[in-house]
Amino acid sequence: MEALDPVELHRLYRGKLETLVKVPVDASLLAHWYTPGVAEASRRIAEEPMESYELTWRWNTVAIISDGTRVLGLGDIGPEAALPVMEGKALLFKYLGGVDAVPIVVRERSVEGLVRLVKALEPSFGGVNIEDVESPKCFELLERLRRELEIPVWHDDQQGTALVVLAALYTALRLTGRRIEDARIVVVGAGAAGTAVVRYLLLAGARPGNIVVMDSKGIIHRGRRGLSGWKRWIAEHTNTEGLEGGGEEAFRGADVAIGLSRPGAIRKEWVRLMNSDAIVFALANPVPEIWPWEAKEAGARIVATGRSDLPNQVNNSLGFPAVFRGALSAWASSITDSMCLAAARALADYVEERGASEDYIIPSMMEEEAYIREAVAVARKAFEEGVARRRESLKTVEEEIRELIKRPKKILRRLVEAGLVRQPAS
Amino acid sequence: MEALDPVELHRLYRGKLETLVKVPVDASLLAHWYTPGVAEASRRIAEEPMESYELTWRWNTVAIISDGTRVLGLGDIGPEAALPVMEGKALLFKYLGGVDAVPIVVRERSVEGLVRLVKALEPSFGGVNIEDVESPKCFELLERLRRELEIPVWHDDQQGTALVVLAALYTALRLTGRRIEDARIVVVGAGAAGTAVVRYLLLAGARPGNIVVMDSKGIIHRGRRGLSGWKRWIAEHTNTEGLEGGGEEAFRGADVAIGLSRPGAIRKEWVRLMNSDAIVFALANPVPEIWPWEAKEAGARIVATGRSDLPNQVNNSLGFPAVFRGALSAWASSITDSMCLAAARALADYVEERGASEDYIIPSMMEEEAYIREAVAVARKAFEEGVARRRESLKTVEEEIRELIKRPKKILRRLVEAGLVRQPAS
Repeated sequence: MEALDPVELHRLYRGKLETLVKVPVDASLLAHWYTPGVAEASRRIAEEPMESYELTWRWNTVAIISDGTRVLGLGDIGPEAALPVMEGKALLFKYLGGVDAVPIVVRERSVEGLVRLVKALEPSFGGVNIEDVESPKCFELLERLRRELEIPVWHDDQQGTALVVLAALYTALRLTGRRIEDARIVVVGAGAAGTAVVRYLLLAGARPGNIVVMDSKGIIHRGRRGLSGWKRWIAEHTNTEGLEGGGEEAFRGADVAIGLSRPGAIRKEWVRLMNSDAIVFALANPVPEIWPWEAKEAGARIVATGRSDLPNQVNNSLGFPAVFRGALSAWASSITDSMCLAAARALADYVEERGASEDYIIPSMMEEEAYIREAVAVARKAFEEGVARRRESLKTVEEEIRELIKRPKKILRRLVEAGLVRQPAS
Repeated sequence: MEALDPVELHRLYRGKLETLVKVPVDASLLAHWYTPGVAEASRRIAEEPMESYELTWRWNTVAIISDGTRVLGLGDIGPEAALPVMEGKALLFKYLGGVDAVPIVVRERSVEGLVRLVKALEPSFGGVNIEDVESPKCFELLERLRRELEIPVWHDDQQGTALVVLAALYTALRLTGRRIEDARIVVVGAGAAGTAVVRYLLLAGARPGNIVVMDSKGIIHRGRRGLSGWKRWIAEHTNTEGLEGGGEEAFRGADVAIGLSRPGAIRKEWVRLMNSDAIVFALANPVPEIWPWEAKEAGARIVATGRSDLPNQVNNSLGFPAVFRGALSAWASSITDSMCLAAARALADYVEERGASEDYIIPSMMEEEAYIREAVAVARKAFEEGVARRRESLKTVEEEIRELIKRPKKILRRLVEAGLVRQPAS
């Protein structure tokens, strides 16, 4: 298995997903699933559109939309080349969250065109996940879609990353005896993820005066020339003391550093300037802003990266599958910030209960119970906030969440046993 | 089971499809299926776009697109209400043809908007099935998409119906000792299906002078006022003798009558005017143009309808799953008329071998081997015609077709056994 490279593995299976018929089929049932019987289901929805959530797969189905303009670290490689990534994401949606996701890569680049396209697709889906769309286009796109659609719209590079960073930060702060209100935080990187992290830090209670954001030109402050768009927003909502300069100035006396930038963007000598028990998240992937051993040598106590082969992997896959599971099971009309904060808190609480440590501030992807707890927290918040449209008890919804998260693994196990999904070696 | 009505059955299962993870998953494999490994697959496709057929599910995936403007007999009920039908169609695609189809209902009605939308979606799919779009819009839509896309585009109400009608007609002609070149044929109904049937009859060898088409105003002939669009095309390509009048004139001396119209549109007294051993296809659904017993009383020897509870069901489900199976396994850039004719011939040959009779002129949906034969004929023709882009031997493709048609039934059987797909009673 180790011998196979990823391309050969992809070639062997020719896709990671297929459609599954999840209803029994025989000649007489087909007359219900298709003509003539299906006309009755259509007629029912024509009378009452929300019935499309009861009578079709829509309630559990998410479109993963990408124009291929900013795919992983590869940049603008176009829609076809983005498809394996979106299909991989759909796999994670299903395997980790029991969500039916459809990878849709599009030859359409303008914001206007993308908005029109996604709006046209809305009747087919219960949610939309925007993925790997370049910034600043992604900001406007997300904002417009959230305003104009009646189903949840999510940009994983924004909300997804911020949620998981926040979950890990909650635990790291707890372990080092800090409160988020008092923590001094440096964010390195002011792209889509950095901006979203700042927004969530503020929502979670961090003080504007305690947050300093750096981009490639140094600290972002109100007086800096040439700020526009979201960088202007950052300047107005952070660094109220008007700190200027570069890494040395930003890191001196900081409790937390969060890198969402590029390899080497955090220097060892800057980490030395941080307070004791410093927390360093170096999340550039696959090569972090600073390697964990370097950060620790420079005095950091808790370090996280985006890598699966190192402890404390801050990984978007801990967010979107469960967030959508909770939102879809509640028939949520949107995913609110409170739902995201509840998800982050649920992950932190789960880790706390299991015994958090410097090398365990966030669950791994294999901790199924963490997903269930997170999804339940999201659904619960959707009901509290009034965005849930489902008319079922929360208890029923919670049972469904548990069952739906377990189902894909059960199915896969059966099909492996039956030889219908083969191991790569065979 | 009989007690359940279709709406309740739909409510019980909340969708007929889900996504299935078809690859093994563990922590180390996830690093290949998603980041970081998947980036290699993306890079490969960026270099060579056709690799998207090797490294993703695209090669086997069809978008079923509908704007909900002409759904079954229900008319313009909108996209949400069309979704159960499209999902049912996707079920048939998978269960009968091993094709992964995604139901996509859209809030977009203009031809221009639909063309733009489908073109934007092209990189995600190996084929497009246009469904339940009103005429005359559907003609222009199909024509433009076929011209502008590099993947097969199919409008089932046109090509699909025509193919299956032709298959049944081949057998009926054989049983009554006729050649298509000599048969006098009346087509009742000049909508999308009627027009497509005429086109295929001509391609299959019927003589323009032997075909007469009727709409609600009577026989279509060159001299009739107010003809435009496709009716003008019909006038120019049929009825070269310029026959005028209504049913009596059209049916007198005809060998074959094909109804693609509405209940009652074929009268018993007209059938009496047909030649002996007359063939009558009354395909309006669920209530045919004439009931089989009435047609037989009036002298018809072979009668077919669209109903599953009567013999000789002329059913689109005998066409699209296998046609796409063959086209997708060949990586066809389009589905040519010759591929459709080959499909029709394969169905007729299958029935001939199995022992055709007056009540068995076309296979049933449960005859798996018919689908395999049909799909193989389509793939073979794609290679002959040079539209196949797959670089594999035809033998490999044929083996794949057989396996892919059998797979969904095997999977469903396993999941029913495991209690993961329940019977409606349980």
